[in-house]
Amino acid sequence: MDFHKYPKEYDVIVIGAGHAGCEASLAPARMGLETLTLTVNLDHVAFMPCNPSLGGPGKSHIVREIDALGGEMARNMDKTMIQIRMLNTSKGPAVHGLRGQSDKAAYHRRMKQVLEQQDKLDLKQEIAEEIVVENGQVRGVITKTGIFFAGKKVILTTGTFLKGRIIIGEAEFNAGPNQQYPANKLSGSLKKLGINLRRFKTGTPPRVSKRSLDFSKMEPQPGETGLSFSFDSEPLSEEQVMCYLTYTTEETHSIIRDNKMRTPLFSGVIEGVGPRYCPSIEDKVVRFPDKNRHQLFIEPEGLNTDEYYISGLSTSLPHDVQIEMARTIPGLENVEIMRPGYAIEYDCVDPEELKLDLELKKIKGLYTAGQINGSSGYEEAAGQGLIAGINAALSLQDREAVILKRSQAYIGVLIDDLVTKGTPEPYRVMTSRAEYRLLLRQDNADQRLTPLGKEIGLVSEERYQKYKNKLTAIKNIISYLRDPENKVNPTAEVREKLTDLSSGNLSKPVSLEKLLRRPEISYADLKFFTDGLPEATADVIEQIEIQVKYKGYIDRQQAQVDQFRKMEEKKIPVEIDYDKLENLRLEAREKLAKIRPLSIGQASRISGVSPADISALMIYLEQYRRNQGGNTSGN
Amino acid sequence: MDFHKYPKEYDVIVIGAGHAGCEASLAPARMGLETLTLTVNLDHVAFMPCNPSLGGPGKSHIVREIDALGGEMARNMDKTMIQIRMLNTSKGPAVHGLRGQSDKAAYHRRMKQVLEQQDKLDLKQEIAEEIVVENGQVRGVITKTGIFFAGKKVILTTGTFLKGRIIIGEAEFNAGPNQQYPANKLSGSLKKLGINLRRFKTGTPPRVSKRSLDFSKMEPQPGETGLSFSFDSEPLSEEQVMCYLTYTTEETHSIIRDNKMRTPLFSGVIEGVGPRYCPSIEDKVVRFPDKNRHQLFIEPEGLNTDEYYISGLSTSLPHDVQIEMARTIPGLENVEIMRPGYAIEYDCVDPEELKLDLELKKIKGLYTAGQINGSSGYEEAAGQGLIAGINAALSLQDREAVILKRSQAYIGVLIDDLVTKGTPEPYRVMTSRAEYRLLLRQDNADQRLTPLGKEIGLVSEERYQKYKNKLTAIKNIISYLRDPENKVNPTAEVREKLTDLSSGNLSKPVSLEKLLRRPEISYADLKFFTDGLPEATADVIEQIEIQVKYKGYIDRQQAQVDQFRKMEEKKIPVEIDYDKLENLRLEAREKLAKIRPLSIGQASRISGVSPADISALMIYLEQYRRNQGGNTSGN
Repeated sequence: MDFHKYPKEYDVIVIGAGHAGCEASLAPARMGLETLTLTVNLDHVAFMPCNPSLGGPGKSHIVREIDALGGEMARNMDKTMIQIRMLNTSKGPAVHGLRGQSDKAAYHRRMKQVLEQQDKLDLKQEIAEEIVVENGQVRGVITKTGIFFAGKKVILTTGTFLKGRIIIGEAEFNAGPNQQYPANKLSGSLKKLGINLRRFKTGTPPRVSKRSLDFSKMEPQPGETGLSFSFDSEPLSEEQVMCYLTYTTEETHSIIRDNKMRTPLFSGVIEGVGPRYCPSIEDKVVRFPDKNRHQLFIEPEGLNTDEYYISGLSTSLPHDVQIEMARTIPGLENVEIMRPGYAIEYDCVDPEELKLDLELKKIKGLYTAGQINGSSGYEEAAGQGLIAGINAALSLQDREAVILKRSQAYIGVLIDDLVTKGTPEPYRVMTSRAEYRLLLRQDNADQRLTPLGKEIGLVSEERYQKYKNKLTAIKNIISYLRDPENKVNPTAEVREKLTDLSSGNLSKPVSLEKLLRRPEISYADLKFFTDGLPEATADVIEQIEIQVKYKGYIDRQQAQVDQFRKMEEKKIPVEIDYDKLENLRLEAREKLAKIRPLSIGQASRISGVSPADISALMIYLEQYRRNQGGNTSGN
Repeated sequence: MDFHKYPKEYDVIVIGAGHAGCEASLAPARMGLETLTLTVNLDHVAFMPCNPSLGGPGKSHIVREIDALGGEMARNMDKTMIQIRMLNTSKGPAVHGLRGQSDKAAYHRRMKQVLEQQDKLDLKQEIAEEIVVENGQVRGVITKTGIFFAGKKVILTTGTFLKGRIIIGEAEFNAGPNQQYPANKLSGSLKKLGINLRRFKTGTPPRVSKRSLDFSKMEPQPGETGLSFSFDSEPLSEEQVMCYLTYTTEETHSIIRDNKMRTPLFSGVIEGVGPRYCPSIEDKVVRFPDKNRHQLFIEPEGLNTDEYYISGLSTSLPHDVQIEMARTIPGLENVEIMRPGYAIEYDCVDPEELKLDLELKKIKGLYTAGQINGSSGYEEAAGQGLIAGINAALSLQDREAVILKRSQAYIGVLIDDLVTKGTPEPYRVMTSRAEYRLLLRQDNADQRLTPLGKEIGLVSEERYQKYKNKLTAIKNIISYLRDPENKVNPTAEVREKLTDLSSGNLSKPVSLEKLLRRPEISYADLKFFTDGLPEATADVIEQIEIQVKYKGYIDRQQAQVDQFRKMEEKKIPVEIDYDKLENLRLEAREKLAKIRPLSIGQASRISGVSPADISALMIYLEQYRRNQGGNTSGN
């Protein structure tokens, strides 16, 4: 078929309008660039084919980082969610994580309209089939209907659509998630361009009918007030939906064990690699034979539907086995499954093909973000989408790429992990992956990233001023707490109050700051000890409490970061010929040549590159620099 | 693949959850039967893949008939629509037609939840692949995931999904409407059962971005207040969306003429038969070369989307041609197409395979409804779906099937046309297809069908009482108008008022009824001529005005119906052997044997059966009856 050139030429073309695609599209358009988004089906923009929720530890951090940088995910969630909670509150603030239940249909609807109404953004239903590349530089995209859309940058955010294949026991068929139309030709175009593709899989649990559930046999999981994802939203009101907790039983496990060979993923016919940290129920039962039950959360898919999601019961077992096993779960004895769970296999790119700015090393102007890079999760996808969109735009504006540091953002950890280490299985962000997690809290994402969002051009002046005002309030109050004038004297009244608060006694005057450092004393409690305690909003108080109570730990971690940054920021010239580094082991030379790290920090995290290799590399760089007569050390 | 029997057995299984499928599912469940609905994708229940609207002359009649019988379409529309108007108000009441703009997403959402919450109805996402039949009797359905659902009756409402094939110029691919997942195997199962399949096509116009439209160059088409589809709803409020009218130009036509050979439907490669009364723009331009412009209505697809629908621009021209031609339309000079128009080809059943109750002649318990029967339109589909659902249920309850007469309902005309005459192309209902259209008005659908809906069991006692109260009010007021006591005398005051109303003078006393018969005098005007004019609601007044003003015509048409009914209702025994009717022409014998009409009326409408054949048949039946010693004439 001949193709016809579209009359308009675009700066950025995004293929896919899922969570990565939406952020990848909005960012360049908001930065003033002509952007085009192509999607297989406009009725599934920002669709949540798996869980009807965002967040959890690590993931909620990313959502708030996206927000601070000027992305849309947090705002969209706040406008459409139906329950929110803070997880892990019994632990320290580093691992606190927001988790929100979404109204899936509303989430899609609002995000689609945000894209529709975004100036400089065209949203079109078209199946992209070929990436056009000339002399190693991307030129645009050709679609199934024969249109050539010219574009200076192309961002692939294809999720699980590339040669998607659904597996439900013995039944297998070519489809995108939830029986959507798959994208069958784009993989071929990528292969022709020499891009190394892999085959990953992921899965989803059955959806069930509310009428068929007995909630009286489950534990209610209510929402909480006062919370939102975006730093810029009003908290969700009290009217929230209820979720429920139940468990698998020994009987469930025995049905799974008896039938596991009936899914080709187990019998070995299909070899797509699945997510270790979001395993199917059959994986869990086989991997943890001693566990006699697994948690299941029963979550509504929205306000205007009676479909419920069984979080924790992801499966590709045959449909009849799904029915049988579901009915062994307390509260699900008479369950009617509305959609069976399934696994989906898809083509994705080896992320070692990427640079840290998410551009492919082999093709100038071609970026990838989201599940195509081997990650799992809506949040991980959106975080990458935002960065790819920003970097495509910055490159067109002749500005330096944004590469978030591991000490700066979970998005930085995520991208650095993917690009530097690669991933043998769908990658999920977790707080344990971050070296500096006391610094990378979900509560301070605004302080970490709002100035950068402003600099990029995605945070409005109004919002930036609001943020600055928050900082000023925090600073002023902390000064007040430190002020020797406001010291608390050990009077009888004070002693009595401290006893009331189950707090130890005072022997000499102490600052308010020191008092607040006590775990049992909150900012509100300080009112008793001083006359002029400044009024403050909840978010300001939260920051003051964390900054005061965890000061010692935070300062120590910051010192580590500063020390590491010196090494991290030692840049490596791109033109370096690793074959010449004969002091390095062959494996290290090959890995370095393949990944082409931008800094010593990045080089040190490549698996197969040892500390000894790093030392040799640093010596070589010192000589190289002297020979060049230049200086390529950090900014 | 082996199959596994589902633990529950169903009375009725409906395959498809479009407009036909939803009605076909709700009716039996509400009649107390265990019902299962299977759909390819739960996210597209009651989806409107073409225009975001219901109604128009003929079609709105069907929607109101569905409502009177206890179906859901009208109520669902009233709850989710965003504009409503009455068309053809310059003509007589027979051709008045409501037309409403729907919020597509809301329409889907509400209908899906109505199904989800319907007692005795299970809604499941499953692709049906095989109809199980034993000894000519349907037994159930086997799905893609290997489940055998046992069912006593099966209703196929597959729309355009059977081997769906999308055509956009030179691009063709296997898909359901709007790139949904197609149903590729079910046709094969039908063929194996000996069902005669055909290939029809239909099409849809491009969807465009609101931001790219210039409404100042179009004519606004506002909504009206006081209207609703259901007899049981509150009218839509004043806050309604705006639609717009624009036209194709000579330039549009010339682009179409230059490119028409670039769609395989024109070049003859594809031979699916398209709808004559809802033609593509390329059909219109070719068929009416003298017309220098065609009307186009620009309609929003919902409140929460910026997609607009171009009603009148249905096309399967190549995407590039669609872009070029759209930009020649006033107001669309800079249009951005969000989804190109397409044609879709699909398998459907020859409706001559059906009985008037919509059961297939060859397979007991297997019914078909909607586009699979060769009709087009959401309304036609829903009307058939309701009747198929009712008849499947009635049959299980050992009750007589509902076969609506041509003089009783447009649904009767539609089904009788399809089953008796067959259809060479997608069938669309039109007021011109009804012989008695002054009786079959949209305004009196409740009077025609509510008692039947009550008898079937789909109209609640509460609603029936409301309806009876309306009838009583009408009757009482008409008595009042006829009462000689309330005659109007030709006083000076009366004469002056008549002059004011531009109405002719009175020479002697007349009844209020006679005065109201004058076209220029409304019920409200009568207030002047009598002291005790009863207060009445708008719907009652409408009925009084129509019944009084059109009494002569209505009575005459009713007399024709009564006369015809005598012949219509002469039943033909099913066991008749047409080969023995040697006085009939061979063609007539063959046609009669194929269609197996239930009555002389139905026989008389079969194309190829002449009045002479009917006479011969009647003589034969008289002899047959005498020989049998029985009597098979009408009820």
